[in-house]
Amino acid sequence: MAENGMERKPWRFDFNPKLRDASSRNIRSTVDLLLSNIDRSDARPVIPLGHGDPSSFPSFRTTAVAEAAVVSAVRSGEYNCYGGSRNLVPSRRLSLPLPGSPLSANSDDVFLTMGCLHAIETVISVLARPGANILLPRPCYPFYEVRAQFSGIEVRYFDLLPDRGWEIDLDAVETLADDRTAAMVIINPGNPTGSVLSYGHLEKVAETARKLGIMIIADEVYGHLVFGNNPFVPMGVFGSVVPVLTIGSISKRWAVPGWRLGWIAACDPNGILKDAQIVKYTNEYLSITSEPVTFIQGAIPEIIKNTTQDFFDKMISLLRQTGSMCYDRVLEMGCFHCRHKAEGSMFMLVRPDPEPLFLKGSSSEMLHITDDVDFCCKLAKEESLIILPGSTVGLPNWLRITFAVEPSSLEDGLLRLKAFCGRHAKGGK
Amino acid sequence: MAENGMERKPWRFDFNPKLRDASSRNIRSTVDLLLSNIDRSDARPVIPLGHGDPSSFPSFRTTAVAEAAVVSAVRSGEYNCYGGSRNLVPSRRLSLPLPGSPLSANSDDVFLTMGCLHAIETVISVLARPGANILLPRPCYPFYEVRAQFSGIEVRYFDLLPDRGWEIDLDAVETLADDRTAAMVIINPGNPTGSVLSYGHLEKVAETARKLGIMIIADEVYGHLVFGNNPFVPMGVFGSVVPVLTIGSISKRWAVPGWRLGWIAACDPNGILKDAQIVKYTNEYLSITSEPVTFIQGAIPEIIKNTTQDFFDKMISLLRQTGSMCYDRVLEMGCFHCRHKAEGSMFMLVRPDPEPLFLKGSSSEMLHITDDVDFCCKLAKEESLIILPGSTVGLPNWLRITFAVEPSSLEDGLLRLKAFCGRHAKGGK
Ligand SMILES: Cc1ncc(COP(=O)(O)O)c(C=O)c1O
Ligand SMILES: Cc1ncc(COP(=O)(O)O)c(C=O)c1O
Repeated sequence: MAENGMERKPWRFDFNPKLRDASSRNIRSTVDLLLSNIDRSDARPVIPLGHGDPSSFPSFRTTAVAEAAVVSAVRSGEYNCYGGSRNLVPSRRLSLPLPGSPLSANSDDVFLTMGCLHAIETVISVLARPGANILLPRPCYPFYEVRAQFSGIEVRYFDLLPDRGWEIDLDAVETLADDRTAAMVIINPGNPTGSVLSYGHLEKVAETARKLGIMIIADEVYGHLVFGNNPFVPMGVFGSVVPVLTIGSISKRWAVPGWRLGWIAACDPNGILKDAQIVKYTNEYLSITSEPVTFIQGAIPEIIKNTTQDFFDKMISLLRQTGSMCYDRVLEMGCFHCRHKAEGSMFMLVRPDPEPLFLKGSSSEMLHITDDVDFCCKLAKEESLIILPGSTVGLPNWLRITFAVEPSSLEDGLLRLKAFCGRHAKGGK
Repeated sequence: MAENGMERKPWRFDFNPKLRDASSRNIRSTVDLLLSNIDRSDARPVIPLGHGDPSSFPSFRTTAVAEAAVVSAVRSGEYNCYGGSRNLVPSRRLSLPLPGSPLSANSDDVFLTMGCLHAIETVISVLARPGANILLPRPCYPFYEVRAQFSGIEVRYFDLLPDRGWEIDLDAVETLADDRTAAMVIINPGNPTGSVLSYGHLEKVAETARKLGIMIIADEVYGHLVFGNNPFVPMGVFGSVVPVLTIGSISKRWAVPGWRLGWIAACDPNGILKDAQIVKYTNEYLSITSEPVTFIQGAIPEIIKNTTQDFFDKMISLLRQTGSMCYDRVLEMGCFHCRHKAEGSMFMLVRPDPEPLFLKGSSSEMLHITDDVDFCCKLAKEESLIILPGSTVGLPNWLRITFAVEPSSLEDGLLRLKAFCGRHAKGGK
């Protein structure tokens, strides 16, 4: 029909259905949902134990050295240009003593990305040839599945075993893999598990992947953030057994997720990824996306060179302290299963116990708790406390608690959790 | 075969064929190709008239105000976190007096992106439902085609008419559109054309799009960089005629492409894009990609508020001066067609004339010039001067000259072009 006197066809455009529900399994959407449950009349501050970003807490403020490196790169005026135009950082590649990766890699094998998210997006997009599949751990950081869905690569899950310190079920990996399997993903130190895999286990993972002919994508965004018995072993040390794409960022170790600087490093001394053109196509993909901010690229060598061991030590001891406090207090509540104390990253997975906590609840019909999402929504509402429902990371009826927050906030949060459980759980004390 | 004593299947992974040749039509790849032709024994500096990034030249240094805003955001320590976690910039949306866009838009209708590249990636990904097509101008900034190919949306080209100041061939648009056409793209001020479209012409574009039922993607990354007779008219003023997605960035107007901060703004007072869920799906897409650096998001209000008219005026008058110099000197050479003097952006398109310059060449067989790419390769080799072959922007046998460089470099570059033409062109003086 004519409007404004002009003839007009119906509007032709429509959205891409591949994006349907893209955001719904994001951690951020879940956190937003929980935040919408907060009772605005509660005067207490919201305590965010839902996502892994402690950067706003005074104790987790990044090192002055890193801020100074960025400020001086901005002030120099030398890095206002596109990154690709600087010879210093040719085509976004940079030969770096990358934190923790044993990079014999030459400069062609390291790519800078806009955080580890962009690294995940890139490796999945590169591997998503038609018909391919990828093996992901369960539980898993959800962004892998979201990107795999968007890229049309099939996802198959292998379990992480809670009773074995969240080690990988390698029998499951062997059963799942077929000749269309491109890669398996490991996240170590683990999100959401808080586990740190041993050298011996990683060696078995490498041998299994080699036997199956699949590469390993090693998400080491929490690399070096370990405070238990197992040291951090970068997967790249097994690069001669099986090709490894190591991905990471400065987001967690330096507590600067807002700086959006990450990397992809091919740990592949035998040149298998190069021969299969995976390195070339990584470069192709990066050529059709945006790139990290040039002055942050420019600041990276300074940041890495000047950050003192002291800063890292302080960070680790803070995480050890908050991780232990979290474990001890949650155990004391007597209504959670949490045998595995976090040894790395910023997270702990717990499961209400005795089961089914969720169905006991209080005597009031309204307060019955049906599942983990309901638990977390009610917790947000009653206690202004945010904790992530396990279903967001593929483990329904578990809960993921982030302990990387200011210790005083953590203490406060755990008291609120205790109060909540006392009201709702039969087993609560 | 067993290697290292371990049984192993052949490697299973392979690259995504959709990425084949992804980078090959990029401006950067072409510039890299030209750079590889530079004669290393030529002591003269390379003069880069190939790509639109003057930010490294002293005269084009960004305003101190913008640098100060970023430095203070970094120093505050308040923006180290993920952008989405800050209430200040909720979910990357920001209600801004966006440079040049008449945004009555509420905050839900503006999204911050990692530069205009990420904005292009986003709008194309959102519109790429199976079977859809998109209308692009010819000549065009090549990233549109690259992203369309990757997203599987069909591309159809309408011509820009050199004899009508690079106006859009609207008859062609009507012929090309069908009921699967999602959008048409206009780039104004133009890259590579250097044109600035008039209010009257844009109004006709809006009416045509409305009649056809397609939306307009208005790339205004060069918005406000005009120095001819036509003022800059943001396409958004026609938002009530036809829904417009305006995209842009601070890259060009502030000469900071390395800061990676752009936007998508829905100029759509009738809510058509909202009703068709295009706004929602833009948000979905952004939720599965990385996001702009938080402290730059945080600095944006200060940058916009504090930049003085003086800075903009200086930039414009510099572009007017270099644009005129480029036009006059190239005309004087007597072997290029360049009737249309650039009125905006940073580029001028010229065509060798008398045709075919390329085949005349010198008497030596080796020096025959076969086409625009060959012209630019030989120019790089003989004169250490980089100019973009028109085929990179869809216009074979034309050349795109960037005049946004330090005036002294431009002068030098144009002398080198003249010398080159004198040697190679019959018509050269
Ligand atoms: C396992 C894992 N990988 C990747 C990321 C994304 O990291 P970045 O902030 O560097 O993009 C996260 C963020 O929480 C993560 O937990
Ligand atoms: C027409 C056009 N659109 C978009 C872009 C990309 O802009 P940005 O640097 O903000 O990503 C450019 C860069 O040259 C361009 O010329």
